[in-house]
Amino acid sequence: MQFRGDIATPALLLDLDAFESNLAAMATHLRDRGKRFRPHGKTHKCPEVARAQIAAGAVGCCAARLAEAEVFADHGIPGLLVTTAVVGSGKLARAVGLAARAPDTVFCVDDQDNARELNAVARAAGVIVHVAIDLYFGRTGVPPGEPALALARVIAALPNLALAGLQSYDGEASHTTPFAARKARTDDSMGRAIATRTLIERDGIPCPMITGGSTGTYRFDADNPGVTELQPGSFIFMDIDYGRIGGADGPEYRDFKNALTVMTTVVSRPPGFAIVDGGYKAFSTDRPFTPRPVNLAGVTYGWAGDEHGRLDLAHAASEVTVGDRIEFIPPHCDPTVNLYDHIHALRGDRVEAVWPIAARGKSQ
Amino acid sequence: MQFRGDIATPALLLDLDAFESNLAAMATHLRDRGKRFRPHGKTHKCPEVARAQIAAGAVGCCAARLAEAEVFADHGIPGLLVTTAVVGSGKLARAVGLAARAPDTVFCVDDQDNARELNAVARAAGVIVHVAIDLYFGRTGVPPGEPALALARVIAALPNLALAGLQSYDGEASHTTPFAARKARTDDSMGRAIATRTLIERDGIPCPMITGGSTGTYRFDADNPGVTELQPGSFIFMDIDYGRIGGADGPEYRDFKNALTVMTTVVSRPPGFAIVDGGYKAFSTDRPFTPRPVNLAGVTYGWAGDEHGRLDLAHAASEVTVGDRIEFIPPHCDPTVNLYDHIHALRGDRVEAVWPIAARGKSQ
Repeated sequence: MQFRGDIATPALLLDLDAFESNLAAMATHLRDRGKRFRPHGKTHKCPEVARAQIAAGAVGCCAARLAEAEVFADHGIPGLLVTTAVVGSGKLARAVGLAARAPDTVFCVDDQDNARELNAVARAAGVIVHVAIDLYFGRTGVPPGEPALALARVIAALPNLALAGLQSYDGEASHTTPFAARKARTDDSMGRAIATRTLIERDGIPCPMITGGSTGTYRFDADNPGVTELQPGSFIFMDIDYGRIGGADGPEYRDFKNALTVMTTVVSRPPGFAIVDGGYKAFSTDRPFTPRPVNLAGVTYGWAGDEHGRLDLAHAASEVTVGDRIEFIPPHCDPTVNLYDHIHALRGDRVEAVWPIAARGKSQ
Repeated sequence: MQFRGDIATPALLLDLDAFESNLAAMATHLRDRGKRFRPHGKTHKCPEVARAQIAAGAVGCCAARLAEAEVFADHGIPGLLVTTAVVGSGKLARAVGLAARAPDTVFCVDDQDNARELNAVARAAGVIVHVAIDLYFGRTGVPPGEPALALARVIAALPNLALAGLQSYDGEASHTTPFAARKARTDDSMGRAIATRTLIERDGIPCPMITGGSTGTYRFDADNPGVTELQPGSFIFMDIDYGRIGGADGPEYRDFKNALTVMTTVVSRPPGFAIVDGGYKAFSTDRPFTPRPVNLAGVTYGWAGDEHGRLDLAHAASEVTVGDRIEFIPPHCDPTVNLYDHIHALRGDRVEAVWPIAARGKSQ
């Protein structure tokens, strides 16, 4: 039996009670509104988490990349959706291989030539590949409206591609603040996606699915009658960033609990400071704020290089000595999880399971 | 036979000609000045790179963490030096286990109680453990002078610890600019380390080694008669950050060549932009500047989330289409390498080897 205090640091810890509460809250919310739930696997890259989500009612699992989807398929996760276009002959061959063994997989496309290449590879292999048109809202995709219609016509004419629908993912909407502005932004993006579907279907091309949404926008998207499924990711873990996007009742976003922490150990105690064994290799640094300690009040984390963090002890609530364990909520969950090989799943202080992050680094 | 264009992206690429040139330059410089060369393995975490360094004259390999050192030992790399204190009973037992199978390993210590605990575990196992006192210059360590002497006396009285010397690593010195200020800073830090060694030896305690230095300070440290060995890391790869620290001849640091790149593919081409498949999971973001394209002039990389980067094409030197491959010099090599499972070692455009980054994520 392993306990919290036995885990070698730095380590990624998951509070199972908070994780299960987050998962049940999202699954119930979407089920009550008749939306399909296809959570995003890029957040966790962990087949055990995907399995828990499917047990809670998810229809499958999104993957940011082909290699990530291959890992999920290797672990028997159904209902895969690859949310970025697969580009290049080597990867297209792998995509068709994945479609052959996991026929319900959906691949996003946003380029006519890429769609034609995918069709050619699928045709040579005798495989039908399900595709979704990725719409552009500031990152990847083809612009909604006529450009998307033109791509839908190309796809409809390709015998080995089957159009599943549209992906309407507006990455910026997820962190738009305050609450009302976030609603306005996602309603606008989803509205353009729904209008594009109408345009495509008026052209005689079936286009049933509209998939998108995020931890930040799920309430609005779930109330939107045109949206058929949601693909939120971060809600299972939460992080400092998502905690700051604001809710209906104020500047804190309280829909989900912080379930993920990074545990560190004080490895050096120079005068006035404690140095913990977590730096750039233990936390993603892409946000303008730093990890937040959860079990030591009065200190602020400061970056101290690749391997270390520095805690100024001038206002620390208690004594700190070498060997003390300090836990932190990460600024941004997805790229922090991508630094670790395992998730330590805890029930209270007991390690209930150690889950391999099997798709960690599988971005190819 | 695999070529540059066949590698699935995002991928970490090493130009072997540049790597070998960097390695030979450092090894020759230190050999000519009679300094031992113990390069830091935290940069590469790759046994094949450590082997190449030993073939070039290195006496061993530093490791930032115990788990990293264990991986190097598993691959037969001799002369290990663990540069941060090993803390906690579980890790101390592993450290003594490592010392038993790799007896020349040196472990840094900076705390009297920790030294006593290490001695107790070593004594129970019947093992002699070599230790170096880590001196404080702003990160980990015990302050030079009397506090270090007090720790040396404790170590000298512990039967199963053998004092190898002092570690004098001043992390801030490595990136101090300009050149003259960097020399002043490292000369000052190393001077305090050398004075501390004198203090310890006058007390009758042998303290032969002073190890430290970095890619930024190696010239000054190699000319310092009191320093016995250097532990630079980044010089084999280089990065944007180290290119900016300045040399004797101007604001660029030209001692070593950029050998490391991240290759990406254009996966989406919305109007005016190209989206590449490398974001927060492909590059460490801890520096205030972004990846620098090496094979496309006139564009600047912009972060576009965990999975993507955005290139504004308004001033691009050439057409960019879906499927194009764009390579970038990373802002900071060490934490970027820590995102990947493999290094693709290229001779020109030919993949000569694919090296596992066996200690990736081994920070425990």
